[in-house]
Amino acid sequence: MCGIIGIYGNPEAATLVYLGLYAQQHRGQEGAGIVSYDGEQVHRHMGQGLVADVYSDPGTLQALPGSLAIGHTRYSTTGGLDAKNIGPLLFNVEETPVSVAHNGNLVNLGAMRRQLQKEGAIFQTTTDTEIIVHLMARASGERMADRLSAALEQVEGAFSLLVLTHEGIIAARDPYGWRPFVLGRLGDTWVAASETCALDLIGAKELRDVEPGEVLLINDDGLQTVHRLPEQRPKHCIFEYIYFSRPDSRIYGANVDKLRRKLGKTLAEEAPTPTADIVISVPDSSNTATVGYASRSGIKHEIGLIRNHYVGRSFIRPEQELRDLTVKLKFNTVKGVLAGREVVIIDDSIVRGTTMRNLVRLLREAGPKKVHVRISSSPIRHHCQFGLDFPTEEELIANQRTKDQIEAYLGVDSLMYLSLEGMLTSMDQPPDHFCTACFSGEYPITLNEVGRKDAFEPSKPEFDDH
Amino acid sequence: MCGIIGIYGNPEAATLVYLGLYAQQHRGQEGAGIVSYDGEQVHRHMGQGLVADVYSDPGTLQALPGSLAIGHTRYSTTGGLDAKNIGPLLFNVEETPVSVAHNGNLVNLGAMRRQLQKEGAIFQTTTDTEIIVHLMARASGERMADRLSAALEQVEGAFSLLVLTHEGIIAARDPYGWRPFVLGRLGDTWVAASETCALDLIGAKELRDVEPGEVLLINDDGLQTVHRLPEQRPKHCIFEYIYFSRPDSRIYGANVDKLRRKLGKTLAEEAPTPTADIVISVPDSSNTATVGYASRSGIKHEIGLIRNHYVGRSFIRPEQELRDLTVKLKFNTVKGVLAGREVVIIDDSIVRGTTMRNLVRLLREAGPKKVHVRISSSPIRHHCQFGLDFPTEEELIANQRTKDQIEAYLGVDSLMYLSLEGMLTSMDQPPDHFCTACFSGEYPITLNEVGRKDAFEPSKPEFDDH
Amino acid sequence: MCGIIGIYGNPEAATLVYLGLYAQQHRGQEGAGIVSYDGEQVHRHMGQGLVADVYSDPGTLQALPGSLAIGHTRYSTTGGLDAKNIGPLLFNVEETPVSVAHNGNLVNLGAMRRQLQKEGAIFQTTTDTEIIVHLMARASGERMADRLSAALEQVEGAFSLLVLTHEGIIAARDPYGWRPFVLGRLGDTWVAASETCALDLIGAKELRDVEPGEVLLINDDGLQTVHRLPEQRPKHCIFEYIYFSRPDSRIYGANVDKLRRKLGKTLAEEAPTPTADIVISVPDSSNTATVGYASRSGIKHEIGLIRNHYVGRSFIRPEQELRDLTVKLKFNTVKGVLAGREVVIIDDSIVRGTTMRNLVRLLREAGPKKVHVRISSSPIRHHCQFGLDFPTEEELIANQRTKDQIEAYLGVDSLMYLSLEGMLTSMDQPPDHFCTACFSGEYPITLNEVGRKDAFEPSKPEFDDH
Amino acid sequence: MCGIIGIYGNPEAATLVYLGLYAQQHRGQEGAGIVSYDGEQVHRHMGQGLVADVYSDPGTLQALPGSLAIGHTRYSTTGGLDAKNIGPLLFNVEETPVSVAHNGNLVNLGAMRRQLQKEGAIFQTTTDTEIIVHLMARASGERMADRLSAALEQVEGAFSLLVLTHEGIIAARDPYGWRPFVLGRLGDTWVAASETCALDLIGAKELRDVEPGEVLLINDDGLQTVHRLPEQRPKHCIFEYIYFSRPDSRIYGANVDKLRRKLGKTLAEEAPTPTADIVISVPDSSNTATVGYASRSGIKHEIGLIRNHYVGRSFIRPEQELRDLTVKLKFNTVKGVLAGREVVIIDDSIVRGTTMRNLVRLLREAGPKKVHVRISSSPIRHHCQFGLDFPTEEELIANQRTKDQIEAYLGVDSLMYLSLEGMLTSMDQPPDHFCTACFSGEYPITLNEVGRKDAFEPSKPEFDDH
Repeated sequence: MCGIIGIYGNPEAATLVYLGLYAQQHRGQEGAGIVSYDGEQVHRHMGQGLVADVYSDPGTLQALPGSLAIGHTRYSTTGGLDAKNIGPLLFNVEETPVSVAHNGNLVNLGAMRRQLQKEGAIFQTTTDTEIIVHLMARASGERMADRLSAALEQVEGAFSLLVLTHEGIIAARDPYGWRPFVLGRLGDTWVAASETCALDLIGAKELRDVEPGEVLLINDDGLQTVHRLPEQRPKHCIFEYIYFSRPDSRIYGANVDKLRRKLGKTLAEEAPTPTADIVISVPDSSNTATVGYASRSGIKHEIGLIRNHYVGRSFIRPEQELRDLTVKLKFNTVKGVLAGREVVIIDDSIVRGTTMRNLVRLLREAGPKKVHVRISSSPIRHHCQFGLDFPTEEELIANQRTKDQIEAYLGVDSLMYLSLEGMLTSMDQPPDHFCTACFSGEYPITLNEVGRKDAFEPSKPEFDDH
Repeated sequence: MCGIIGIYGNPEAATLVYLGLYAQQHRGQEGAGIVSYDGEQVHRHMGQGLVADVYSDPGTLQALPGSLAIGHTRYSTTGGLDAKNIGPLLFNVEETPVSVAHNGNLVNLGAMRRQLQKEGAIFQTTTDTEIIVHLMARASGERMADRLSAALEQVEGAFSLLVLTHEGIIAARDPYGWRPFVLGRLGDTWVAASETCALDLIGAKELRDVEPGEVLLINDDGLQTVHRLPEQRPKHCIFEYIYFSRPDSRIYGANVDKLRRKLGKTLAEEAPTPTADIVISVPDSSNTATVGYASRSGIKHEIGLIRNHYVGRSFIRPEQELRDLTVKLKFNTVKGVLAGREVVIIDDSIVRGTTMRNLVRLLREAGPKKVHVRISSSPIRHHCQFGLDFPTEEELIANQRTKDQIEAYLGVDSLMYLSLEGMLTSMDQPPDHFCTACFSGEYPITLNEVGRKDAFEPSKPEFDDH
Repeated sequence: MCGIIGIYGNPEAATLVYLGLYAQQHRGQEGAGIVSYDGEQVHRHMGQGLVADVYSDPGTLQALPGSLAIGHTRYSTTGGLDAKNIGPLLFNVEETPVSVAHNGNLVNLGAMRRQLQKEGAIFQTTTDTEIIVHLMARASGERMADRLSAALEQVEGAFSLLVLTHEGIIAARDPYGWRPFVLGRLGDTWVAASETCALDLIGAKELRDVEPGEVLLINDDGLQTVHRLPEQRPKHCIFEYIYFSRPDSRIYGANVDKLRRKLGKTLAEEAPTPTADIVISVPDSSNTATVGYASRSGIKHEIGLIRNHYVGRSFIRPEQELRDLTVKLKFNTVKGVLAGREVVIIDDSIVRGTTMRNLVRLLREAGPKKVHVRISSSPIRHHCQFGLDFPTEEELIANQRTKDQIEAYLGVDSLMYLSLEGMLTSMDQPPDHFCTACFSGEYPITLNEVGRKDAFEPSKPEFDDH
Repeated sequence: MCGIIGIYGNPEAATLVYLGLYAQQHRGQEGAGIVSYDGEQVHRHMGQGLVADVYSDPGTLQALPGSLAIGHTRYSTTGGLDAKNIGPLLFNVEETPVSVAHNGNLVNLGAMRRQLQKEGAIFQTTTDTEIIVHLMARASGERMADRLSAALEQVEGAFSLLVLTHEGIIAARDPYGWRPFVLGRLGDTWVAASETCALDLIGAKELRDVEPGEVLLINDDGLQTVHRLPEQRPKHCIFEYIYFSRPDSRIYGANVDKLRRKLGKTLAEEAPTPTADIVISVPDSSNTATVGYASRSGIKHEIGLIRNHYVGRSFIRPEQELRDLTVKLKFNTVKGVLAGREVVIIDDSIVRGTTMRNLVRLLREAGPKKVHVRISSSPIRHHCQFGLDFPTEEELIANQRTKDQIEAYLGVDSLMYLSLEGMLTSMDQPPDHFCTACFSGEYPITLNEVGRKDAFEPSKPEFDDH
């Protein structure tokens, strides 16, 4: 996942981008970058780590002048952890700078990359995004927006794209609308962002989504749709509603909070726990679903886990083994609440299962009578090719074990997931408007090659830029 | 406020101290320091900022060898923001290193400091803590613990102290027991810390409190009480239960979470809101009190505010004014929950009132029918002299305005505080076991001089160490 | 100018490269980079500033493992000051990493770059060196050495090149032998470097020069000449002997020190100063020529200027104007030596004239009777296209003013240059073996376009990577 | 050794101090510090390393406002390498900041320090300088200058002192005038510095020396001598002329360059080398003495060693042993000059002998017929107690070995030193005006205790501030 934002027509474009990235920090914490254009020069600053850290020095933003800017927070899907893979990427197409911020993941690229290289193309990064730029460099068309449209006709996969050139900012979204992408307005300033929480922070009003398949140019003439890619049935990523987006955002035209509460309610119906004394959440990710579960089930909603909000990115560990240290660094139990009680703990999803297992062990130390786990989504059994950074299928616990085995592994008294039908009926749109590949294995695009995060990291020899 | 922790008898003493500081990060975010002793040398590392940042480099902890160590997280009460005021302070008493970590605040020190200076004493810091060391240097006694006992006989105020010397670690607490201070055990390792959450993280078991007035030496012979200061009626800081301590800690012998929930329940009885649709908290500080209020009142508990957990210490702001940016950086509203509803928002306390005012403005944008504010403590009207860093009395909104004026200032439909009696009856101990000076103005110690955070910052000329 | 070095067949290849760069620091102080290959991965570290600063952290060199490595110190000739222009450059040619370190300057590149871009090539840097890599990507040939040979057939200009691939290190030199390039041996380790001073530091023995026009592959089979570019009459840069190389180096088969002393002697014959009391140098650059001048003229050699050896790269200046501060930061006069004396000051060359003018002002303050300036080379009147970073011709004082005007500008009693003939007869090789373009304007290659350092910095819009 | 400078009455006092420290960088490269006073606050910035590095950020000097400032470059004589020992030290004497910069070394302090500690004094550093401040704190007197005078009456040893308070800058020098100390004027600005080279850089004129035994107050009324310590026969450090001061400075009323040349001439008379072909210096330290030796002996002065001017403070070494790397990092030989010649190399002094030994080995590789070493001072046999940081007497080669043994150790054909008489007759003042203790063992002050650099570093336990 990644978060992107573009600002057109504001003297402090880079600062607004910075705020928008900050609001979308949950979409990528590995790195952040901003590119601005001041009418003469393109400026860029990027770095590894959180947005507030990458731009902690006020001079950094001052060195990004201009009234248009785009930004990117990174959560690697393709391309290694290398600093040069942090977006927005910046290239020279015939001496014209072109900068690209991309949320999503292209598929079926291997043959295309090999062919481009045979023709002499030299790739600077191992990202999927760079393919688009090489296609633009080979495309014809007077405007960069035309070259981009031509390039996008040749690729498959998920993309919400922002492209900055001296001609303006281009926003483009794949025909399936895989990733969220919204347009907003703050006075005379245009905004395009992954989620509405970015609009809220800077005080912008939501206008509409960048439509699936739309290529949109933003310049002094306002918004113009310059191209439409061949239409497809929408395939919105349902996991954005389940976990990824912020609960205070609106995406795909609905409030995340509302649907997440609905998932909790449906879960209470499908997977009741009649004997339980209290229901608790894993703060803060399952707070909203827990509210839904508690209200529908009538079980008392309690605070059983306290989250430490000072968790840093790297943490120094002692050599001696301290039991459950990893989970304790993030959570502590409220003993008085848990002791002697039959407890339901709600979580939004289980990936590898290790975190939940450690959490259950921690809960057990507080002396609950029983521990039931309820998950407000279905078992994740398949790899995502469209922008989520799930581990390999071998590492997905639900791909490898039965429900009984998972219960034993987690050490719980019972475990229940929400069904695929339950998930889809909790939504506001028809069931076939969603991509559920990670649950169902049904990929909307036929995959010719298995995408891997490091697909283009050369196996031998390899770059290692320090 | 400050958080302190000492470890005796563990080969990774500094790393355990580091974890204990991390667990107590909420007690002070301005700086952190650790001092260790390896049998030959005293080692020290301190820095401004969060614990995880000050010790982000693994080499830093490796450079703090030894089986005893003490640590301090700082939230300045006396002494400026100067780096040299970050504890644990380190002094040479007759070529013997003595390091002191202090939570609390001494009072009535001015005359004593002036007298010491007249006798030639040169102060290195502007902290109250340093007075103790100068008194130790002038005291007689074979052991440092004896010199410390003699010094503590001469001072007044609040102190939970950890003193590291080559003779061991000394823990001392003022006779009123103003600040929490607990002892624990992890295998053969002794632990002393401000709160039990520090014990929980490293897996130590709680033994007992360092008793009010106790001076305790920890060395290879175990714990020995070497001195008792003249007994006093306990005066525990009630604000630790209301706001300051972590809800998952036990202090003064009771669970914080339990009493905080009780405060919420008492508030529901004293200050009902019969027409309200929902009750929301200010995450995360009033979460527990809100649970109490909701359960006693029967009003539906909802999540109306989302907190951004990536808030950094410094944040770059645009020059153009963005409405409510400061509060929005920390919170966003969940619009669907608030629109058209009569909302009760619970908070633990109001100091200046500016944050609550901004929060109410933010809530209003989401379109609630009414906004009621309920506070799970009494109006704060007085300065704290015993370790809390409240602003001057002129800045305390309840010192300056009537309830009607505060309601108008906040822009709320109603405001109600918990009464002093309501607070005290929610506690587990007799009412006269608590210091309520910030609410009542009744100071347990007669103050000869008004203490200020920068009391010993020379008015002119002044230090400014970069 | 730049300094390059390659090491093949040593477990500490990167460290030897680092030492070789350090010895060649005078060839470029703007930045330094090292690329190593450990049989599996290519590693790279580069930075702005001096070699000792870029690699001040021991971990940096440890992170460059492998038995082959190349390095580069940078003094920009083409390409802006941008960090990404610091060599060795690193590219992926069909997923194979290729790294290039280049001393020299290619010419007549504009049309070629535009054509490559029209075919879709995306340039990562604004250096001339990158052209070679794009030509390699389009060339055929099994080995990278063959692709490189094919690419070099297509370019004109000065190049001493080191190319690292997984097949070994390739050394190539233009057919004119414009820049120095020497091979050495340390036990079983092969070394290729710009100057012999790099061999001396690591204790390697000089073998021979990389010959003009030679493309040489160094791998486990030793040295193999894989290609020879069309032969040309040598055109060694004479300015290397006059100023640029270190006096303790051997280049083009002769000791720099010996020829520099010879230039001083010839100058004493051509431009005598019979009435002078003492002759002084501008330490350290003209020390050797001054020894030659003093010994041939019989005038007493004195130390009249002391050089401050702590000169840093950036220096903070007061706002108030301090007379001659710039030159005083580098030099101070020895008053007792200069007062009342008729002084000859020897320098190797004059470019803009501003430094000499300031130096003369400084000398005048010490009260000499007269000041004569003698220059051990001819007037510099033309731009260098082959690797020296002279300013534009408008800024060259000898291009703009007569000798009388320069004397007046410098404020000296007399000024004399060495003649072109005097320079060439001081050499060990025939006069037509040298490029004297900066003095004579006779360029060995016809220039189709005026090369500028920033030729490929796009005029609008432009990159500005922070 | 250390270099100090004070500026009074200039809006850019700190910047001028910075320049003055830079000019005196040779007097101490371990650290640098500046303290300024702006009429309200005292500001301070210090750091380890070179002046240009400690103040590389322009903001650092801007954060040192005020029209008076003092600075210090450090070369530890007493006090460990600890950052808190870097001057100028800063203390609070009865809430009044007092900052002290000290060049020299006090003696016989142990008993005094122990007594002060018994009375309760807490030392912040392990420097000798701090004793003076504790004595000031215990002294009476209205002005700090009076307290300082009273304190200085109680100490023995070498001191050139600058003390900054809100009353002005106080300059004081021990009665023997051990260390140089000069006053200068730049417009209305007063300057006091160790050497005149600091005055030269900022364009100040030399006025006179701070006289031995003088305590001088500089404030808006100009210079006032406020006290004179009991008069003594001068004991100027002769090693300042031999090696330590810059050759372009004037100290003790004479040009260093002139006397250093005189030492070379006397050496030529005492220790001739009639068969030698050439005489070379160890650049740059013995350049001036070599000029004297060459001119008096008539032997040809050549450049046989090239010094690398990019030597950094720390340098990374390979694990494999490279012969003579340490000396090669600093010097390379000019082979053509040395091969087959009988060479005299002049140096100013020999301390441990290891550097000269390595240098001789390096010279031998260039194939000279013979190598003679001539030293322009006498054998150093004794520890300095007055400010020079010589190693222990056991490490001084001349204390441990005969001339024959030293010749064998160095591997030279002959070695000769200048006699004590030769040194003294080369001076401009009577022989008994100089301290020659390091050569003769005659200490002008009776030493009660052997001073060591780390005298007050507590043996156990010890500080280790990171």
